[in-house]
Amino acid sequence: MQNVLYNHKFMSGFLSSDELEAYAPAVAQAEKSLSAKDGLGNDYLGWLDLPKRIGKDAVSAINDKAQEIRAKADVLICVGIGGSYLGTKGAIEFLSPTFEDLRKPRVIFAGHTINSDYLTDLLELVKDKEVAVNVISKSGTTTEPAIAFRIIRQWMEQRYGRKEAAARIVATTDPVVGALRKLAKEEGYAAFEIPADVGGRFSVMTPVGLFPMAVAGIDIAKLLEGAVSAYDFCSGESIEKNMAGRYAAVRNILFRKGYTTEVMATFQPQLHFFCEWWKQLSGESEGKDGTGIFPAGLDYTTDLHSLGQWMQEGVRNVFETFMILKNTASTMAVPKFEDDSDDLNYLAGRSFEDINDKAFQGTILAHLDGGVPSATLTLQDRSETTLGQLFYFFQKSVALSGYILRVNPFDQPGVEAYKKNMFALLGKKGFEKQAEALLGRVKDSF
Amino acid sequence: MQNVLYNHKFMSGFLSSDELEAYAPAVAQAEKSLSAKDGLGNDYLGWLDLPKRIGKDAVSAINDKAQEIRAKADVLICVGIGGSYLGTKGAIEFLSPTFEDLRKPRVIFAGHTINSDYLTDLLELVKDKEVAVNVISKSGTTTEPAIAFRIIRQWMEQRYGRKEAAARIVATTDPVVGALRKLAKEEGYAAFEIPADVGGRFSVMTPVGLFPMAVAGIDIAKLLEGAVSAYDFCSGESIEKNMAGRYAAVRNILFRKGYTTEVMATFQPQLHFFCEWWKQLSGESEGKDGTGIFPAGLDYTTDLHSLGQWMQEGVRNVFETFMILKNTASTMAVPKFEDDSDDLNYLAGRSFEDINDKAFQGTILAHLDGGVPSATLTLQDRSETTLGQLFYFFQKSVALSGYILRVNPFDQPGVEAYKKNMFALLGKKGFEKQAEALLGRVKDSF
Repeated sequence: MQNVLYNHKFMSGFLSSDELEAYAPAVAQAEKSLSAKDGLGNDYLGWLDLPKRIGKDAVSAINDKAQEIRAKADVLICVGIGGSYLGTKGAIEFLSPTFEDLRKPRVIFAGHTINSDYLTDLLELVKDKEVAVNVISKSGTTTEPAIAFRIIRQWMEQRYGRKEAAARIVATTDPVVGALRKLAKEEGYAAFEIPADVGGRFSVMTPVGLFPMAVAGIDIAKLLEGAVSAYDFCSGESIEKNMAGRYAAVRNILFRKGYTTEVMATFQPQLHFFCEWWKQLSGESEGKDGTGIFPAGLDYTTDLHSLGQWMQEGVRNVFETFMILKNTASTMAVPKFEDDSDDLNYLAGRSFEDINDKAFQGTILAHLDGGVPSATLTLQDRSETTLGQLFYFFQKSVALSGYILRVNPFDQPGVEAYKKNMFALLGKKGFEKQAEALLGRVKDSF
Repeated sequence: MQNVLYNHKFMSGFLSSDELEAYAPAVAQAEKSLSAKDGLGNDYLGWLDLPKRIGKDAVSAINDKAQEIRAKADVLICVGIGGSYLGTKGAIEFLSPTFEDLRKPRVIFAGHTINSDYLTDLLELVKDKEVAVNVISKSGTTTEPAIAFRIIRQWMEQRYGRKEAAARIVATTDPVVGALRKLAKEEGYAAFEIPADVGGRFSVMTPVGLFPMAVAGIDIAKLLEGAVSAYDFCSGESIEKNMAGRYAAVRNILFRKGYTTEVMATFQPQLHFFCEWWKQLSGESEGKDGTGIFPAGLDYTTDLHSLGQWMQEGVRNVFETFMILKNTASTMAVPKFEDDSDDLNYLAGRSFEDINDKAFQGTILAHLDGGVPSATLTLQDRSETTLGQLFYFFQKSVALSGYILRVNPFDQPGVEAYKKNMFALLGKKGFEKQAEALLGRVKDSF
């Protein structure tokens, strides 16, 4: 069953069927390159078929370890940044109760920021709770997670002793080399493998995302099945059939016309963090060589009372994709009040979802009238199947979109720029020359 | 003491002192219009001097009621949307422990979204806790907070009985008219006033924000003093002295050159939600008449591993304001590990803040080299004084910026567009004609 549906028919005033037709060959070519693995960044195509290839044994091993952790921990501290953080958090927020302290066990993230106050508060929060840790890093030397893990490892060893701490720490890292693999061997941490041919932002359906999701109680087999079921409507050279290709084409056409920002608009707070995952996937894949759509997320109706004004009447360099959830987990109706002081009895008995749906329809029509090309992405429900399809749809789509844009959607050369500066300023060995020039620029300035 | 400092000197490659000089008369003119109250939207200038005018008695009344609530409630459910939500949440996140369940009492928001799952989870969360409610709405009929308040009022009356529920509900609303004022009188709710001459997005330092902040334990007198102390460096016709005017001028110059998006980049997760407040203030004030900067927020270093790639090498239509915190509440140092498996002993003994600071310096230099005009806004600490100055600085600045751009920074005509559509689609009386046309467009489409 197809739980994710992209519909661009409302864009007709901004994008003709002829224009879309003209992009069909580019989509077909991009599909061919992905299948033949002869395009840019073709060392990083492992994600393409991983949901099918991963295999039952690997899934069982993840679930077994997750069950063990669930049995003894109230909290899993998940240490990671970027692709080792955003997708997992997006999945948990989408599939779990809205408030963190209703989740059992609760997954709390660390190592995604450099902040004493955050870590101090985190250790205060877990001081009376049973804790396990999942540290995720291909190399084990990325600054943010590595220094956070030093604090957390020390805390775990003080609290539980070195041996029991090791039994509560799970590493997700390179299969063979790297600092974290070495440490895991020495300390006896359980360890999962990050496939060599999958980049960080495409890793949510590897053990990187699957293990902490399983600890959070997510059915990861269902999630992977969902992703596999998306192959069908996200593949092929026909733009009618290939929904990921159609979305990629629409984005490129609009971008070429000067719509340089894409707003992903949700109508459910539970989708907020999924959009953060999408922002990395999209921005890091396409934002290079002076090109690439700027991805932004808005949470409606909240943000209709914030950036709604700008969306309606601001600069017309933005297009919008509305992510709509058809079925919520629960439902509530507006109660009838005798006094009707707020004049809202006309809504009595109607569900919040019905009202939210009318807010969505009202908004997309208003934005179209205001000059914003808008499309919809409808999700069936808050289920693993839907989420698996959604992950795969966006992964496939951004790969095609990058190829259409003629960039390498699988590298991120620009991320090194600030790191090199930071290493130089921190006095790391090997960066002495750079340091001198930078210190001159910094002096007297900050 | 000036706790907030704007520095644009790094922009010299993108913006000359002559250009800035050329904008000085526009800043002076905008200042004159605000002082003389003869500019666009001059009915809504109450915020300009409110931190001084509000008076000790009003502050005491808010604090007294807050103390009463603090004594009997574990949770304050704060019902509001837009300007009745974002500033308060931004303030609480900036001044409180990072995790919600470490806050006592805890302020939880509602009515900012239309979502059964959110409300269901909220009522589950508070079922064994002592609850009070603050409902905030000028009219009392705004759909989102009004329908959420129906659910919450019903729940409170069932739980506590009508009389005790009324003693636990505080309304913040119009001084005289409107549905919520009427209801508060009838039910005997304590009530605070929203000044008539202050618009929603400028209302954070009225009872709208001050009461729930006081319940959260924030020293609101200090906050207001902070705002008053910002008058000095945020006023006057000299662009050297008037920091708010300088920031407004810089933004307008860059916008005119095609930098249509401003990224507010923080390096502290505790500033994330402050940026949401800023996004409304900025976007809703300027995004009209087909113009206005698109405001976006990024949380570094988290987002350096996400949109960092785009920021470094993407489309060059973005400028960046780095919001930097000088002093965190706590401090932590990187521990030294004998094994040094992660090669990070070169950082041993150094504070997270020192490392974060080098990450910031490395990033701003990298982004400048990558073609992003970047400035800094340095904050002294996580204190009420700093936050009061910060609120006032941005309010003053956006007012000046709007005048320079020749828009009315105090209205929001575009927000009505989706509302009218929504009312028509919901079948509200008086919208029948519009409904017919809309239903035709919606049919067979969603």
